[in-house]
Amino acid sequence: MSSRHETGRPRDPQDDSPVWENRIKIGPWTQISRAVTYNNPWIRVEHHQVQDPSGQDGVYGVVHFKNRALACVPLHEDGTVTLVGQHRYPLDLWTWEIPEGGGSREADPLTEMQRELMEETGLSASEWIPLGVIHPSNSVTDETAHLWLARGLTEGSLARESTEGDMKTMRVPFAEAVAMALDGRITDALTVTALFRASGWLTSASSRT
Amino acid sequence: MSSRHETGRPRDPQDDSPVWENRIKIGPWTQISRAVTYNNPWIRVEHHQVQDPSGQDGVYGVVHFKNRALACVPLHEDGTVTLVGQHRYPLDLWTWEIPEGGGSREADPLTEMQRELMEETGLSASEWIPLGVIHPSNSVTDETAHLWLARGLTEGSLARESTEGDMKTMRVPFAEAVAMALDGRITDALTVTALFRASGWLTSASSRT
Repeated sequence: MSSRHETGRPRDPQDDSPVWENRIKIGPWTQISRAVTYNNPWIRVEHHQVQDPSGQDGVYGVVHFKNRALACVPLHEDGTVTLVGQHRYPLDLWTWEIPEGGGSREADPLTEMQRELMEETGLSASEWIPLGVIHPSNSVTDETAHLWLARGLTEGSLARESTEGDMKTMRVPFAEAVAMALDGRITDALTVTALFRASGWLTSASSRT
Repeated sequence: MSSRHETGRPRDPQDDSPVWENRIKIGPWTQISRAVTYNNPWIRVEHHQVQDPSGQDGVYGVVHFKNRALACVPLHEDGTVTLVGQHRYPLDLWTWEIPEGGGSREADPLTEMQRELMEETGLSASEWIPLGVIHPSNSVTDETAHLWLARGLTEGSLARESTEGDMKTMRVPFAEAVAMALDGRITDALTVTALFRASGWLTSASSRT
């Protein structure tokens, strides 16, 4: 890739030099140029000139997530799960979710998840069952979320971040959390997908015993 | 809100005039200023100065989605569902999904979904069971997705968009699609959540009869 497209600045609109040297195949797409249009500690937004799978010229705005998304279903011995409630700024909406956070792509995802769970709920877990990854919004972002079921929980103390100052927790039976995900009282995609996969794992685990 | 923050341009960094007149409460957050940093036909990216729920100064990058996300599980009489495969540019990843698309916020979501289903698969459906909404990525975006189960399918002809030139379809048993969502062969959040809710709806429908 040509280094002039790595400067984080859009191409000068007066610069009409050919950009063919920057052509990259992305599956059936061709990336012709890219320019960073926004950057903060969490996301980088890029404007790409592309040719789509049919060969038509177009543009693509891509939102790169600097961190992995992490989420776990904390399942207590009594069959309840801890949900976390908070106001989500982009939607201006109060929402009940499982514990979630962002983890550095350089760090171990599970270690980062364990830190987030402790910070938000004070809980630590002795058993971590991986529930795979999901891609929350793949038409625009490269966000990748890692999901777990966490069991063998013990309670410690909270250490919430400043942005989590309004956070609340509640414990509900696992079946009630699933019902909330099904009937729309829970709308957060990480929570809905993790409860689904946890439910599938628990069903197949119980059929093995 | 003061009109000077509605111009779509960042505040002049040399402008140190007070911005208190622009303060807006977003739940426990305070929005102090906002500036559009990127705009294309699908998304608008804004940089906000904020005070977080603990009163600390910070910034928030918000990705506004101009369209609603729409997705449906097309369930055939023989118990199979039609999946759509395509290469997702932001992730550089081939992915199997249910039919999805973007619909204007001014139009009826179901009408837009029916058009997308026809375009991508050639299918039309006589029965549409709403499966509610989800928020795919609520820490950064305001994206809202509407989900359905579609039954009573009849086959017509395709009319794919240019960006969908690599799209493929396959039919798999509903239980196999659910297994793919559970074991990670399907990672698209809209697909995983819609299959979960469709599964819940079908289970409760069968227990009613």
